Amino acid sequence: MGAAQSFRELCDRTKNTNVRLSLPAVCIVWQTAMIILFGVFIRYNEESDTHWVEYRKENNLSDIQNDFYFRYPSFQDVHVMIFVGFGFLMTFLQRYSFGAVGFNFLIAAFGLQWALLMQGWFHSLDYTDGKIKIGVENLINADFCVAGCLIAYGAVLGKVSPVQLLVLTLFGITLFAVEEYIILDLIHAKDAGGSMVIHTFGGYYGLSISWMLYRPNLDQSNRLQSSVYHSDVFAMIGTLFLWMFWPSFNSAITDHGDGQHRAAINTYLALASTVLTTVAVSSLFQKHGKLDMVHIQNSTLAGGVAVGTAAEFMLMPYGSLIVGFCCGIISTLGYIFLTPFMEKYLKIQDTCGIHNLHAMPGVIGGIVGAITAAAATESVYGAEGLRNTFDFEGEFADRSTSKQGGHQAAGLCVAICFGVGGGILVGFILRLPIWGDPADDNCFNDEPYWENFPNIYLSWKLNSLQV
Amino acid sequence: MGAAQSFRELCDRTKNTNVRLSLPAVCIVWQTAMIILFGVFIRYNEESDTHWVEYRKENNLSDIQNDFYFRYPSFQDVHVMIFVGFGFLMTFLQRYSFGAVGFNFLIAAFGLQWALLMQGWFHSLDYTDGKIKIGVENLINADFCVAGCLIAYGAVLGKVSPVQLLVLTLFGITLFAVEEYIILDLIHAKDAGGSMVIHTFGGYYGLSISWMLYRPNLDQSNRLQSSVYHSDVFAMIGTLFLWMFWPSFNSAITDHGDGQHRAAINTYLALASTVLTTVAVSSLFQKHGKLDMVHIQNSTLAGGVAVGTAAEFMLMPYGSLIVGFCCGIISTLGYIFLTPFMEKYLKIQDTCGIHNLHAMPGVIGGIVGAITAAAATESVYGAEGLRNTFDFEGEFADRSTSKQGGHQAAGLCVAICFGVGGGILVGFILRLPIWGDPADDNCFNDEPYWENFPNIYLSWKLNSLQV
Amino acid sequence: MGAAQSFRELCDRTKNTNVRLSLPAVCIVWQTAMIILFGVFIRYNEESDTHWVEYRKENNLSDIQNDFYFRYPSFQDVHVMIFVGFGFLMTFLQRYSFGAVGFNFLIAAFGLQWALLMQGWFHSLDYTDGKIKIGVENLINADFCVAGCLIAYGAVLGKVSPVQLLVLTLFGITLFAVEEYIILDLIHAKDAGGSMVIHTFGGYYGLSISWMLYRPNLDQSNRLQSSVYHSDVFAMIGTLFLWMFWPSFNSAITDHGDGQHRAAINTYLALASTVLTTVAVSSLFQKHGKLDMVHIQNSTLAGGVAVGTAAEFMLMPYGSLIVGFCCGIISTLGYIFLTPFMEKYLKIQDTCGIHNLHAMPGVIGGIVGAITAAAATESVYGAEGLRNTFDFEGEFADRSTSKQGGHQAAGLCVAICFGVGGGILVGFILRLPIWGDPADDNCFNDEPYWENFPNIYLSWKLNSLQV
Repeated sequence: MGAAQSFRELCDRTKNTNVRLSLPAVCIVWQTAMIILFGVFIRYNEESDTHWVEYRKENNLSDIQNDFYFRYPSFQDVHVMIFVGFGFLMTFLQRYSFGAVGFNFLIAAFGLQWALLMQGWFHSLDYTDGKIKIGVENLINADFCVAGCLIAYGAVLGKVSPVQLLVLTLFGITLFAVEEYIILDLIHAKDAGGSMVIHTFGGYYGLSISWMLYRPNLDQSNRLQSSVYHSDVFAMIGTLFLWMFWPSFNSAITDHGDGQHRAAINTYLALASTVLTTVAVSSLFQKHGKLDMVHIQNSTLAGGVAVGTAAEFMLMPYGSLIVGFCCGIISTLGYIFLTPFMEKYLKIQDTCGIHNLHAMPGVIGGIVGAITAAAATESVYGAEGLRNTFDFEGEFADRSTSKQGGHQAAGLCVAICFGVGGGILVGFILRLPIWGDPADDNCFNDEPYWENFPNIYLSWKLNSLQV
Repeated sequence: MGAAQSFRELCDRTKNTNVRLSLPAVCIVWQTAMIILFGVFIRYNEESDTHWVEYRKENNLSDIQNDFYFRYPSFQDVHVMIFVGFGFLMTFLQRYSFGAVGFNFLIAAFGLQWALLMQGWFHSLDYTDGKIKIGVENLINADFCVAGCLIAYGAVLGKVSPVQLLVLTLFGITLFAVEEYIILDLIHAKDAGGSMVIHTFGGYYGLSISWMLYRPNLDQSNRLQSSVYHSDVFAMIGTLFLWMFWPSFNSAITDHGDGQHRAAINTYLALASTVLTTVAVSSLFQKHGKLDMVHIQNSTLAGGVAVGTAAEFMLMPYGSLIVGFCCGIISTLGYIFLTPFMEKYLKIQDTCGIHNLHAMPGVIGGIVGAITAAAATESVYGAEGLRNTFDFEGEFADRSTSKQGGHQAAGLCVAICFGVGGGILVGFILRLPIWGDPADDNCFNDEPYWENFPNIYLSWKLNSLQV
Repeated sequence: MGAAQSFRELCDRTKNTNVRLSLPAVCIVWQTAMIILFGVFIRYNEESDTHWVEYRKENNLSDIQNDFYFRYPSFQDVHVMIFVGFGFLMTFLQRYSFGAVGFNFLIAAFGLQWALLMQGWFHSLDYTDGKIKIGVENLINADFCVAGCLIAYGAVLGKVSPVQLLVLTLFGITLFAVEEYIILDLIHAKDAGGSMVIHTFGGYYGLSISWMLYRPNLDQSNRLQSSVYHSDVFAMIGTLFLWMFWPSFNSAITDHGDGQHRAAINTYLALASTVLTTVAVSSLFQKHGKLDMVHIQNSTLAGGVAVGTAAEFMLMPYGSLIVGFCCGIISTLGYIFLTPFMEKYLKIQDTCGIHNLHAMPGVIGGIVGAITAAAATESVYGAEGLRNTFDFEGEFADRSTSKQGGHQAAGLCVAICFGVGGGILVGFILRLPIWGDPADDNCFNDEPYWENFPNIYLSWKLNSLQV
């Protein structure tokens, strides 16, 4: 005990978690930069500007045909997923709830501003005046972009400092905007719910970072990487808000009308199916058939990820059920077999199991999307429906659906490459000893970063009862 | 102590809670059946299909006139009520929060698929091709159908196995679809918020099952049927999301335009009124005028139930307040006097008090609906308004409002009969000793069905401090 | 200890917290009065009445152009903010979570009915028949009106009885309706998100009441005015739902089309900016750079308050970021320096720090609104856009924007005067020894007002471990 104690104290001394200079500096400098860049570049678009009144008269529109009314309800649902969904899903650790919900809050608020700029440069730039024109769709896309980084946060939860998270987010948003541009604009793949662009990228980005930041002695020294009763109930708040609002996530930026309608239905069905197979596998692989809260909290969501790309296609209701069926099984098996394997043999410590919830289902979603696109026919979609759904317009006017299938697959590869490559790069940066990350002994613990930490109950619990 | 101990151990031995075979089997078989049936029967309707683009041109509609935009915000609110509302409302028990929110999740995801089929056969069947065509309204109706079973779950909370709950749901959805068809289509009663179809049916269904599953020794052997501080705060999450989104529940499937608008207003007012009388009665009947959390969590919602049928009628704002006023009083008095009476003399153990929150207010709602319908006049509604509100079209074109009042009352009777009859039948099935239900001593306890249960805090609490 | 003990016991004897007569009496009498007044005055408006079918034909409208569809999603978001947002934000105290969320629920349900009447008399009175015609916009305004009183509740949280809160609400709603009429109708100031009307008024109203109810010995006698781990996580539920839905709050009653769209964007941006500067200042002023949960829970919201008035103006995205930037800093500094100063020297005990979250940011919001209005030009807004945004119609048709700026400032003064004056008046009433308020020793404690209080865990914690 004496030797271990002194080793830990040494770690605590070499690992300085004081972020009193770096955290405020990064926040203030960054926010100031944002104000300047927004001042130079960002303006309202024609639907959020006071000139809408003239625009709508010219185009003979009613006020209700402002894009705001098509997308705002879904936007708010997505917003809830980002802040409450991701934030509370990660509160399951007994002593890291502040960090889970608080740092999730910080990096989302930080990231969405940068996302508005980065995505704006690629998608919403008005070449007549060099300004980025934003509306509600940009807000949704910024939330999507942030989601990629929050997924990555799941892999390193409890093991990094807030400054590291801001660096992770800064690079993550940038990489996201570039891969999104390549996948959606250059390759012209479709990805309504971001199976590839968000989940595959975010998943592999986080796993690669976690691999770079591997802590060989983490398990021996840390007793806090588990849940308590109430922290698991808090995590269910996150699970349910993610599960319920996933139809909004996958339909938020799809086409007005049938596109949004169909994407919501497909996602609703895939998620329902996932719950049942998750429960089945969870029960089947535990003694006495007991359910594991980890699976219920996470694997039940895999169907929403996997149906993302194809959500706006004519996947058919039974197709959605099949996707959900498979993903519930695969994701739960991943928690049971793959996560321990990855930690032991691949040196990837994945706190939240994002490989099972985002990376694998994201890849499945990309494949489902490619197959569904390749199998699309005019007899099912109708001529105009096919053109609308796949945006076969302009330079893509004469693309065939089978070719589209190939491009979907190419998009998936790009997402994986950006995730892995970007993660290794950023992981390398995060290994620099300047970011204030905690010692092994302080991982999964709110104390290093939270003042006035009311820890008496918990430390009592830990010390007296040997939990 | 020794004798009691050995009796309990005997119970534990005879009552085997191992569901390792039955639970996965039911889930996998069922989900496979769903995929096949969806493949055969379920397709997108004209508003969620890619052919919408042609449909809307033919009918000279704008994209925003897709039913999706009329109903999707309400749908998501209803979805939150089903999963977070019902789920968290039932977390009040100190040691059954996983079961409350987890099994609620399971049976809702299970039930809504079956509901889409059952309700689809009755309401959305396209006779030209024998397919059920679904859109957002079907998703809402499936959630409604599930609500009936979740209400029933409240009566047996903590006393049944997940397999029993799936059986309860399977039969509950089926019975619901039939009674709904009889009440809404054959009798042509109106029931916007489902006071009769959902709450009366679900309430009596659950109470009858609980009566069939009566456990005479439950009280003596179990110390867990109570709340702790934090579990009561968790339950308030459920209460508030139910309370806030009830206007969406009652307006979700009413007529476009004034119907949805009026239903939301009426429900908002009834609920506000209920809160005040609940507080009044709760305070009046406790010594020192203290409030009881059970009443605040439950009786405050009774007004939303009772205004369900009449929500779309011209109930008038003061009418809504009166309904809420009465229901707050009746429901709270029910918790104080009726629930103990029913347990002692009628052998109905009603864990959540669904009789006070759903069954009684549902019956009141049915009666209010019948009176309001019978009292409807053309001078108040306008000729076209009256026709629209009561759907006096086709074979019902010349029905009078007084006759409609009688049919409303008939609908209420059907709901009660289906609830009681169906509950007795299903309760009989659930008494078979094959479902893995817990012994009396293991009721209201997550341990039999949840792995990795972090129970040290709780068992310490119970054993050392004699809570 | 002996002397202090007996003094406290004396207090407990003189301070009788029994509200068994007063609370039910107030609730029942009040609710009965509401029914009568609603019966006399309140009717549906043309969009929620069955005559809508004729109205829309006359005006050549589609059903989707019913105001319900423009405002209902935002209404529900506001509703969540009022009940879950305010309610859970106040659960941070370790032993006052029932009171926080329960009394918040009570006074909101109580207040919104009175608000419908009071605001209706000023704004929605139909002079042809002397009736108040209500629709969804009235529901939103009632929620807004209630928000003012809930803000005030934050200052006196844990120190007053439920009867006092009902009195506070009764007068608060009344004062609110009058000051709102003066500011919006007579002065014709614009205040989309209520920086002045809601936050400035509510903040100073609460602070003045708290000043009148000053308890000199509160700190010495009370150990409960702090949080525990889980209560801080509960409070984050409130924070996040307020933060996420604030764009809906500020856009809920702005003009259809670009007005709602722009208000949502501005608020989204201001809030994101606030998070970063809050984190920066919180970390900078604590040793080791640790974050303080109090700041994260509260100051992150200040940007939403401060952008309220100008949210619908052409504040520009960078303008919103600047507002948020400043408010995060000011609000956090307020918690660090101003709150202790006010308690010590000004005798204002502000439990939740509403001065930092509502009063100061509200004043800033009023000033920002005045400057933005005064700086508005036709070149930026367009002629028609300027007229629409500032409602320069009727008697205000030829008002200049610089004059409008002056009127905005005048509106701010009115809000402060009503808040301070009204608060002193109501505080005087609340000092009467008839309301059942708790002794100093019972403050921040749920026990006096909540039955069946499961306090064993807490009392054990307090007594055995000297937390």
